[in-house]
Amino acid sequence: MNQRVQAKKRKSAPPAAGEVTTGPIYRSHKVYRPVEFQGVTLQIPARRIELTNDTTFDVYDTSGIYTHENPELDLAAGLEKVRDTWPRHAPVPASEEHPELRVQTQLAWARAGVITPEMVFCAEREGFTPEEVRAEVAAGRAVICANHNHPEIEPMIIGRKFAVKINANMGNSAVTSSIAEEVEKMVWATRWGADTIMDLSTGNDIHETREWILRNSPVPVGTVPIYQALEKVNGDPTKLTWEIYRDTIIEQCEQGVDYMTVHAGVLLRYVPLAANRVTGIVSRGGSIMAAWCLHRHQESFLYTNFVELCDILAKYDVTFSLGDGLRPGSIADANDAAQLAELETLGELTLIARSRGCQVMIEGPGHVPMHKIAVNVEWEEKWCHDAPFYTLGPLATDIAPGYDHITSAIGAAIIGQAGTAMLCYVTPKEHLGLPNRDDVKTGVITYKIAAHAADLGKGHPRAQERDDELSKARFEFRWHDQFALALDPDTALEFHDETLPAEPAKTAHFCSMCGPKFCSMRISQDVRDYAAANGLDTVAAIEAGMREKSAEFQAGGDRVYLPLTTK
Amino acid sequence: MNQRVQAKKRKSAPPAAGEVTTGPIYRSHKVYRPVEFQGVTLQIPARRIELTNDTTFDVYDTSGIYTHENPELDLAAGLEKVRDTWPRHAPVPASEEHPELRVQTQLAWARAGVITPEMVFCAEREGFTPEEVRAEVAAGRAVICANHNHPEIEPMIIGRKFAVKINANMGNSAVTSSIAEEVEKMVWATRWGADTIMDLSTGNDIHETREWILRNSPVPVGTVPIYQALEKVNGDPTKLTWEIYRDTIIEQCEQGVDYMTVHAGVLLRYVPLAANRVTGIVSRGGSIMAAWCLHRHQESFLYTNFVELCDILAKYDVTFSLGDGLRPGSIADANDAAQLAELETLGELTLIARSRGCQVMIEGPGHVPMHKIAVNVEWEEKWCHDAPFYTLGPLATDIAPGYDHITSAIGAAIIGQAGTAMLCYVTPKEHLGLPNRDDVKTGVITYKIAAHAADLGKGHPRAQERDDELSKARFEFRWHDQFALALDPDTALEFHDETLPAEPAKTAHFCSMCGPKFCSMRISQDVRDYAAANGLDTVAAIEAGMREKSAEFQAGGDRVYLPLTTK
Repeated sequence: MNQRVQAKKRKSAPPAAGEVTTGPIYRSHKVYRPVEFQGVTLQIPARRIELTNDTTFDVYDTSGIYTHENPELDLAAGLEKVRDTWPRHAPVPASEEHPELRVQTQLAWARAGVITPEMVFCAEREGFTPEEVRAEVAAGRAVICANHNHPEIEPMIIGRKFAVKINANMGNSAVTSSIAEEVEKMVWATRWGADTIMDLSTGNDIHETREWILRNSPVPVGTVPIYQALEKVNGDPTKLTWEIYRDTIIEQCEQGVDYMTVHAGVLLRYVPLAANRVTGIVSRGGSIMAAWCLHRHQESFLYTNFVELCDILAKYDVTFSLGDGLRPGSIADANDAAQLAELETLGELTLIARSRGCQVMIEGPGHVPMHKIAVNVEWEEKWCHDAPFYTLGPLATDIAPGYDHITSAIGAAIIGQAGTAMLCYVTPKEHLGLPNRDDVKTGVITYKIAAHAADLGKGHPRAQERDDELSKARFEFRWHDQFALALDPDTALEFHDETLPAEPAKTAHFCSMCGPKFCSMRISQDVRDYAAANGLDTVAAIEAGMREKSAEFQAGGDRVYLPLTTK
Repeated sequence: MNQRVQAKKRKSAPPAAGEVTTGPIYRSHKVYRPVEFQGVTLQIPARRIELTNDTTFDVYDTSGIYTHENPELDLAAGLEKVRDTWPRHAPVPASEEHPELRVQTQLAWARAGVITPEMVFCAEREGFTPEEVRAEVAAGRAVICANHNHPEIEPMIIGRKFAVKINANMGNSAVTSSIAEEVEKMVWATRWGADTIMDLSTGNDIHETREWILRNSPVPVGTVPIYQALEKVNGDPTKLTWEIYRDTIIEQCEQGVDYMTVHAGVLLRYVPLAANRVTGIVSRGGSIMAAWCLHRHQESFLYTNFVELCDILAKYDVTFSLGDGLRPGSIADANDAAQLAELETLGELTLIARSRGCQVMIEGPGHVPMHKIAVNVEWEEKWCHDAPFYTLGPLATDIAPGYDHITSAIGAAIIGQAGTAMLCYVTPKEHLGLPNRDDVKTGVITYKIAAHAADLGKGHPRAQERDDELSKARFEFRWHDQFALALDPDTALEFHDETLPAEPAKTAHFCSMCGPKFCSMRISQDVRDYAAANGLDTVAAIEAGMREKSAEFQAGGDRVYLPLTTK
């Protein structure tokens, strides 16, 4: 698998078998801004879009070196272990309650007032100050998922104050797919903007698949360790034990997994609350734990060994993603007793984990109708002590299998605007099959849309810059710039080519909607010219002019017509 | 073009050239429920889905006879003129203010207390009473778009109390497409659920294209007459006159157009308000009128002749769709002075139109970030006297050309939940090119999702029935039923086939996500069995049982762990 792959000059073409997709995105190149910190130089990545008006526009970028021109790749060796060269602060107390536990986690450091290279990196990447990042991490309102044993990643931050992030799931299952495909899916997903990826493999070669993904991923990697534990007991949940699970966790921590979904909130007494649901328990992890609890009629080993689990994760600074094993799987089951009972328990566990120095985020639904979405964030923040919320969609309706990237993007945008920090993507194959390469891209782009809509909706200070840049390009018929600024330039270009394929159409001052004879944008320009010719060359002047005209008009009766009725 | 086309048994395959798509949708057949009214029998249409558990589920259907098994089609002659056989009440006063104007419109009849066959049809179709429909129409909160000269349609109602409707735009332009394609697009769009279609042709053969569409459409048809008027003056807006426009309107009224977009709210003094926008004026109609106003430095002929215009439309009961010529074309321009000024004027015009007996709806944006969406509905209802709102999207971000069906579905769902009565679809080609057949379908299905999510979100009494039916099928692994209940059965089936193509997989009690070895749904069934075995066979029993267990548990300390911190 050791290879050099040619950069694609224009379109993101599929790679040959065993290769991964590389090369710059349309009219862009990867740039790094050096930031000095405690004797090392942090290289802050961005994608620089080259515009036809001789300016550039930088956008947040998650693609690592894969979007370099002719990157030096060695998939077997993995990416450079950059974070190993960064200074690491000595252990500090996990928390005020546990000064005796001295750990090395972003949470513990943040609480101790220590600014880490990871905090600086995240801050510079998003346009915040390192102190703002530290304060959010210290409060538990944000997490930096960065296992000490995963030095290859470019750190990023998940929290409601920051840009909404998205996760892309991948992983082979018992039914289909290969390791090479999974690595390419990771590269492909991060190319289009996945901020983290989760490896949800359930079949054979779980360890090896994960190793390949971890060593080559520029973004944090999450897992659901119970899936691998279940493989070790041949798929029989009742055979699971704390020891098997613990060994699996340690194995994955050692490998470098950055965050782990742990369904420790599925309590025995909550399980029957799901019995009369329309769709029962739909979380794989949740149903495994429910089966175990029912079979043994006792609380799960995740719950009864939670402190030990915390102490393992704290050692590596692996972030908890407390799983919603009882999330609703249908509109009918949204916000029900089972879901809420578990959420309250996740709040308890959050405090325990933090007291041991662990970073925590909380997973959320699932399937929720629009009017019941925002309250999920309220409950989560209140009961789970402002831990970052990480939701799967939610799907705003059940009736569109084949389009659940869309049903869920509606819910995701709304829950993101309400404060959710990270959105787990849903692909068009949800409920029907396993996502292929195209589905992964569709899922990622759809979730970039939802996240960006949420950033605009929640007033992220820099979110609108890109909208404005693209809309200006559109208004000025800079077609290539419109494509380049798009979340998916290849598709935008391809769609334009379908109707107007020739290169002159890419600089034409019209589009296929109105044709060359008539153009609303051209008339808009006439309006602008008219305003300028009348001395109305600024908004202020226009408004002044209008006030005058308006006064005249009002004096003349205010209307061309007097309404014939006032009803 | 006179032909008989074979029904497709399973998938909706594309028709041969010059043909249209016919045949039942997957595992469904068209049914008509007879309702007697004043000596005639109204045939209320629905699509009946046949489920594998020997039950059926009826859904609202807009596809006319095209989804019959082997429909008798004669595209040249058009559909049967059913409404010509219905009783029509005598003219009544247009309004209290104008008792001298005696018209035949749904509004005038509704105000006079007359229940029309159209009202009964709409009511029976959606599960309301005829009186509820009459009251909403009388108040101007709902419209029934049904030109007397368009007897082929199955009437439907647009209003915030009813299910959210969707419109699909089509029409050839100067650049591309043929008449046959446009008729097929109409059939194709209504097959998947378009409640109305708009013919936005701007090129040659406008009249003939429209005639073919009107005579064969089972749904109301809207137009923007200024486009045809502009063709008559060779595309020069400054050459437009009231007389040319009036003649165009009469021509279209005579043909049977059911609603018309009229940009009468673009006043001269508002035009400069758009001059310094990021994207100026993006509405074609708006920019035509702006150009005219600027050129002549006078108010538009639409505004100065509005009463005469009303009296023409009232004669045919053509509904006004008062156009938002100054709608925002970018996030930056959302909710600005130009948009709001025009909306206030549309409110004035609404009262004038109603006083002449005309039905009115109001068109809305466009591009709006999430946090600025809902207030658009508030303003519209307040200033436009509760006229039904009909919006284009809005797009919740500008940065995803190629995916604007999704950026706008987010906005559409939100504005629908807030009270918007009809959503104009946006296809993936928006801003880039003209939609082809696949794009039309994608746009329609995406907007059915947004409309349905909105219906759930606003609490439409029957909306959740279909979600529940589909989710039950999903939980019970009735794969064929899950496909059949989906908005797009063909795509759901195709996606399932990709991973698990064999027929046994369609009855298998597992799916490709977890594989056969482990299945969360199966474990859910175990939970249900467990609950039943313990006498917890109803929710009440479960809750009682849980209360008991919970009490024991609380007596025992309420937690396995006491939190180690209360912070």
